[in-house]
Parts: sequence; C-alpha cells; structure tokens
Amino acid sequence: MESIKYVLPENRMPTAWYNVQADLPQPLPPVLHPGTGQPVGPDDLAPLFPMELIKQEVSTERYIDIPEEVQQVYRQWRPTPLFRARRLEQLLDTPARIYYKYEGVSPAGSHKPNTAVPQAFYNKQEGVNRLVTETGAGQWGSSLSMACAFFGMECQVFMVKVSYNQKPYRRALMETFGASVTASPSVNTQVGRMILDEHPDSPGSLGIAISEAVEVAAMSGGTTKYALGSVLNHVLMHQTIIGEEVLIQLELADDYPDIIVGCTGGGSNFAGIVLPFLREKFSGKRQTRIVAVEPAACPSLTRGLYAYDFGDTGKLTPLTKMHTLGHNFVPPGIHAGGLRYHGMAPIVSHLKELDVIEARAEPQLRCFEAGMMFAKAEGIIPAPEANHAVRGAIDEALRCREEGVSKAILFNLSGHGHFDMQAYIDYQAGKLQDYEYPQEEVAMALAGLPSVG
Amino acid sequence: MESIKYVLPENRMPTAWYNVQADLPQPLPPVLHPGTGQPVGPDDLAPLFPMELIKQEVSTERYIDIPEEVQQVYRQWRPTPLFRARRLEQLLDTPARIYYKYEGVSPAGSHKPNTAVPQAFYNKQEGVNRLVTETGAGQWGSSLSMACAFFGMECQVFMVKVSYNQKPYRRALMETFGASVTASPSVNTQVGRMILDEHPDSPGSLGIAISEAVEVAAMSGGTTKYALGSVLNHVLMHQTIIGEEVLIQLELADDYPDIIVGCTGGGSNFAGIVLPFLREKFSGKRQTRIVAVEPAACPSLTRGLYAYDFGDTGKLTPLTKMHTLGHNFVPPGIHAGGLRYHGMAPIVSHLKELDVIEARAEPQLRCFEAGMMFAKAEGIIPAPEANHAVRGAIDEALRCREEGVSKAILFNLSGHGHFDMQAYIDYQAGKLQDYEYPQEEVAMALAGLPSVG
Repeated sequence: MESIKYVLPENRMPTAWYNVQADLPQPLPPVLHPGTGQPVGPDDLAPLFPMELIKQEVSTERYIDIPEEVQQVYRQWRPTPLFRARRLEQLLDTPARIYYKYEGVSPAGSHKPNTAVPQAFYNKQEGVNRLVTETGAGQWGSSLSMACAFFGMECQVFMVKVSYNQKPYRRALMETFGASVTASPSVNTQVGRMILDEHPDSPGSLGIAISEAVEVAAMSGGTTKYALGSVLNHVLMHQTIIGEEVLIQLELADDYPDIIVGCTGGGSNFAGIVLPFLREKFSGKRQTRIVAVEPAACPSLTRGLYAYDFGDTGKLTPLTKMHTLGHNFVPPGIHAGGLRYHGMAPIVSHLKELDVIEARAEPQLRCFEAGMMFAKAEGIIPAPEANHAVRGAIDEALRCREEGVSKAILFNLSGHGHFDMQAYIDYQAGKLQDYEYPQEEVAMALAGLPSVG
Repeated sequence: MESIKYVLPENRMPTAWYNVQADLPQPLPPVLHPGTGQPVGPDDLAPLFPMELIKQEVSTERYIDIPEEVQQVYRQWRPTPLFRARRLEQLLDTPARIYYKYEGVSPAGSHKPNTAVPQAFYNKQEGVNRLVTETGAGQWGSSLSMACAFFGMECQVFMVKVSYNQKPYRRALMETFGASVTASPSVNTQVGRMILDEHPDSPGSLGIAISEAVEVAAMSGGTTKYALGSVLNHVLMHQTIIGEEVLIQLELADDYPDIIVGCTGGGSNFAGIVLPFLREKFSGKRQTRIVAVEPAACPSLTRGLYAYDFGDTGKLTPLTKMHTLGHNFVPPGIHAGGLRYHGMAPIVSHLKELDVIEARAEPQLRCFEAGMMFAKAEGIIPAPEANHAVRGAIDEALRCREEGVSKAILFNLSGHGHFDMQAYIDYQAGKLQDYEYPQEEVAMALAGLPSVG
C-alpha cells in the first residue's frame, strides 16, 4: 500500500490570498498605541512596514491578488503536494484517511517563504533595499534571506543567541544566501545592551530579538524596514495559499476533512491551512473540527491570558490583543523545537475566543515519538515544530481506530527537519525531557502585562 | 526575471528504464572472476544480489519496465522538476539557456532513491528481508535505509569512519529510518579486522566499506543481500528515469541541450541524465556534447587507468574494466564532498574510451564558489558533489558569454546540501584547500592492479 500524491497543475495555483477579516463573525479588536491607548493608524506603522503591507494588515477585502512577480517566485516550488499518508494509516492500523500538505518542498524548507517573498517584493517596490528581522530556530530568517537574495536586497537577521550557538547550520544557510546574522541580545542596539547589562548570560528570546530588529528599522531613517515572520494579519493572509491549494487538491481526491490539525507558535502555518476552510465553515457550507497543537513548554493558547500585550520584550511594538505568556517570557532551554513565541496571532486568538477552534498542548517527547513514526512511514523527517501537528493527527487517527470510524484528517507538515537532526539525535539518545511551564511562573509573567485595553 | 519550472504531469512519468547496453557501438568488456580470469556467471553473483538484478546487469533489452510497486513509490516525489535557471543566467550575464534537473526533492535529498527503491523491491520480492551496504557521504545509505523502511526490511550500513564522525546528522537520518549504522573499518568483519590490525587509525574508504558489506552478505547464507549505490549497470539503468523525464520536459520547453554536464563519483547520476540523450545521439537524431566533471582530489576518469580492477579494497568483488585509481585508493581528508570512489562505472568508462563523452577534473574551491553563486541565484543549496556539475555548467555559460553564442546547457543537480553545511561553513571561513592527487601516488596505486584482463 503506497502513499498517494495529489498534484495541482500549475495553472490552477490560486492567484489571490484569502483575507479572513472579511468574514469574521466579530471584527478583531484594534491594535493600540502603548502611549495613548488609542488605535494605531498607518502613520504609526510607516517607519516599520511598506504602505501596501500596512493596508493589507487592516483590509477587509475578501481576496487580495497575489502580484505576478510573487506568483513567479512561488511557482519555483508551488503548488506544494498534498499526500494521503497510506503507509502511516497502515502503520497505525486506523480506518482514518490521513492527508498532509507538505510545505517543506520550498527551497528554505518550510512554509515561511510564502510570506517572505511578498514582504520582500512590496518593500522593494516601495524603494526599500534593506530588511531587518529576527529568527528563533531559523526557518523564518533563512526564508527572508532567500527572498532578499532573489530581489537583490540586503538582509540583517537577529538570531536568538541560544539558537545561534546551537544551530550553526541554519546560520550558515542564511549567510550562504548573503544575509548578515547577529546573535541576540547583541551590543548593536540599545535594547540589546540594556538586556546584556542586566543579564549578561541571557540566552535570548524571540521577544528580545524582535525588539532589536524593530529598533534598527526605527532608527534607520527609512532605509531599512522591518519584517515579521508570523503573528500579523498580513503574514497569516499570505499563508492562506496553503489552504486554498488544499481545497482544490481535496476536490481532486474527492474528499473533505472532518478534522484539520496544525501546530501553533505565532500561528501562521496553522492559519495558512485553516482559514480557507473557515470561509466554508462560516458560510455554513461545510463543518470541520479545527485543532491547534502547541508545545507544553510554551502554551500561549492553552494557558496564556487573552489580553493586550507587547509583541516584544523591549516594549517597542504596539499593543495587540492576543493569548500571551507575557512579553518577558523566555522559553526553557530544554525545549528542542521552535514555537517559542510568547504570544499568539491576534486572528488565531480571536478564533479561539469565539470557540471556532480548539487548542491543546503537547509535551515534546510525545511529539518526537510521532515524528519518528511519520519518518519511517512516509520517508520525510518533520521539523520539530511540525511534529506537534503530526502528534495531533496521529492521536485523532488512533481515536478513529478505537471508535471504529473513518474520518478524514488533514494536517499541515509545515517544514522538514534537515537542520534539526541534533534534536532527533538527542531524542533517540534519551536526552530530551518534557517540561511543563509552571503555573506560578505563568502568573508572575502575566502580572507584568500593560494595563491598557 | 524569474526562473521557470517545467512540470511533467504524473501520467507522463516514464514507465520503463532505458538500458544503454542495447545501443552501445561496442559491447562492454565482460566482468571477470578474479581466480579464473573467466567471465562471471549469474551463480557467482547470486550470493550477493537477487536474480532479477543479476539479469538486469547483463541484459541487452532496450527497455525494462518499472514495476508498478516501484512507480508508486517514485510518485511520492517524481516526476522531479526541470528548471530554467534564469536568475543564474542573469547573474552570469550570459546568453546561454541554463537548465537543471533537480533530484534533491526526493525525501532522502538526492537521486539515490531512484535505485534504492527498486533494489529493495526486487530483494523483497525474492524473499530477502535484510540488506547490507556501504556509504560515504551518506546519500546512498540514507536512501537505502528509507527504501528498506518502506518495504519493511532491515538495513545495515557500513559508513566510512571519517564521515561517520564528521556527519552525525546523516547517520541520525539513517537511524531515524530504522537502519543500523557501523563505522568502517569495523571489528565486525574479517576484512575490517585485518585493516584495523594494519592501520588502527584508518579513516576508512568506500573500497573498505564495500568489502565489509560484501563479506556480511556473502557469509549470511542468503538471509542478507548486498546493495550498491552506483557503478553497476543495473544501478545506472535505474537512474535513467532522470534523463527520460528531462527529454519530455525539454519538449515542453521546446528546447534541446547543446551541452549536458554531470558530476561523477561512481557515475550513476551522470549516467542517469546522460544515457537517454545518448540514445538520441547514437541513433544519429541529435547531437549533444557531454561533459563529466569529477573532483581533482579523486580523478578516476581523467587520471586513472582504464584497466581491470577490484571494486573493493578487500578484493572480494569480481574484476571490472573501468577507469581506476587502484582499489587501495584512500581520498585525502581535506576533500570535503562525496565522489570519493576509486573506480568509475564500467559504462561511463567505456563511453569515455569511445570518445562519446568528455571529462574534466575540478578543484573543490572553484566548485564551492559555483555552488554559492547558484544558491544565491536559485535559492537551493547544492550538495558538494553537485557543485561539480554547477561549476561545469557555469563555465560553459561563461564561455557562451565570451563567444557571444546562446547555447542550451543542461545539468543534473543531483542533491541538496542540507546535511553538508559544515563544508559551506568551512569554505566561507577560508578553511578549505585545493588538493591535486600527486602523479607519483597515482602511479604507485596503479602498480598494484591485478594482472588479469
């Protein structure tokens, strides 16, 4: 019994992104200025982002056309394949039909180029030749580095220090694409110096690295703009090409998911596969259970507070309403994978509050166990992040076996683990441990939230 | 200007491999038994290979059908894309049209699964449940491990010791697929113990690892068979799916190559893209220059002797006529990439003797320079092996610029470099050096060739 690939002809690749803001049952809470507590306007964001992305961030148009130049780059690896994982089904002895969308076929190895490419493009179009960003595990940094190389732009990446030291190969990938990579916290920024003064041994965090990148952009006088790889509305929207493709591919397979599973860090790959199916759900056409799986070590959706918070540790960003573990959150060193951000995308948070989606947190050992099963069955080594989605899908498939029902389970395999083999070595050597974020620490971190909103 | 992908619909995937033995202007010299000096028969090979592969090895049928079970597995990543590298053309400012076939989209990251899958299949079909092999850089070992996992077979891999120590991630990949991996030379075999007695610090070589794997198969009483990832006729034939796909894809592109470039180690990826074009050449239909590029540190085609030699250091294999650096050859430690085998595939050697193909040797620094250019332009990090093909293609494109002619240049990008980032780090840090195999050493190694044939 062999796994089946559903190929989408290139001429059926979607030519527009889907903007869920057009269809939300209730609108998103506004983004607030931390000083005034008032909603931010385009001018507040103009130092950081090109105007086209600022417009997309607040647009309520249902579809936004993908520029032809972006489509051309997408076509290097898109449409990505959808697979029916029949060998995995056989291994699990389940009556479930398991489908996975594989985003690891992009040159950077994950879904991140779906937004890196348009972000670079819109900046370039508005005359910006230099981007600055942060990266944790490195998926985002390598994707933006690649996009910048394609459009002949410079790229600077602040890489969370613990990853910078543990993942020299991800760093090498970015440098091969021509980016300059700095360990964060660094002495290059005011924020970095402040943090190093207080915590000279700080391992860094996404929150800190974002502060450094935002500061560089804000101080550049417009020559350098900032790019974020998740969380923001326009980023999630760029990822909807994933789900739009799957909708057509499942038509070819003559099937429709009863359950969709995605892993969540900032929320972009999850939203990318899920939002187009929500359009169907909101319109009452078809119903699907939607499950977000996050790490127990960074449980923003399941244990964070739904509140206004900063997007970064240095409090340089506006305030957004989201599930948050507090902007000072630093994930534990023993957590091997990505998905380490303190907050969750406002759109995903909003959907959770509206009970449109479910969420659960999984410890990392169960996730690696699932990833190993998947690798043996399907031949693809998932990124540790994606293992959370694999775990969720396998658990649903096992439940189908217990209940003796055949459901269609769809999940997003957001990237491969070729640059994360150390985590697999550690797992197989019994060196990884589970970690649950202690309730007292959650409470303490949340005590520091801003009082606005 | 964007690069263009030529997609081949799945239903146009070739269903037969091409056997060049049907069309060779002169037949291949026979494989000889080292004891008798007489041609070997099927019975001599039966302890090592399943009968179907032994038949394929000597077949003169023009086409051999790809079993449906193998096609099903192929379809997970095949047909692989053919790209027109327009961003690279732009970077080089060349009038040349550069095409590359990308085999790195396979789950194991190279062309090697094209033969690993049928080899596992034919063995399984004949009741064999365990395969043993060798690997150098790890491309072949991880591909066979994956194929064995797909067919529910055990896999043991002797990995050249220097790679075993330098490439823990490749090893982890094989182990994740369920294989057992042993550093070679090992104490597990008589050959390994002999070599360790004489050279306790031996870094290993492909020749030694082959001896160990062959010994394990030969002593197993038929429970374990041996699998080789290159060199043999049936292996090269399995790879012809590459070139067969390209022929159709170039029809879609309405173009035909003036020059084809491939990198050569054992010769299988080179043969895979080249042989179907040779069919066209032999039939007089169309002419194409064909260029093999090998490492200056392991220059079998350009500086080896065309003579009968053993395939392994321990002299356990039959004798084949090929370009060889001598079966005791150990490549220099400073050579970063694969392509380290002492011999060249008999078919490729034969074609070189017949002046059907050209060959050149390139030092590694020029190859990494080419790989870096390619990565920035096209977003894909080539395996160090594939960088030799990239170098060859870029040099031909630069010559087109000098001469002001627009030629079509096709090359095989045989795999990605995700597991080889240390070599890119070393290159960028200026730590790699060139090495040319000294003429005296060549002469000395060749003095030890067997006298038969």
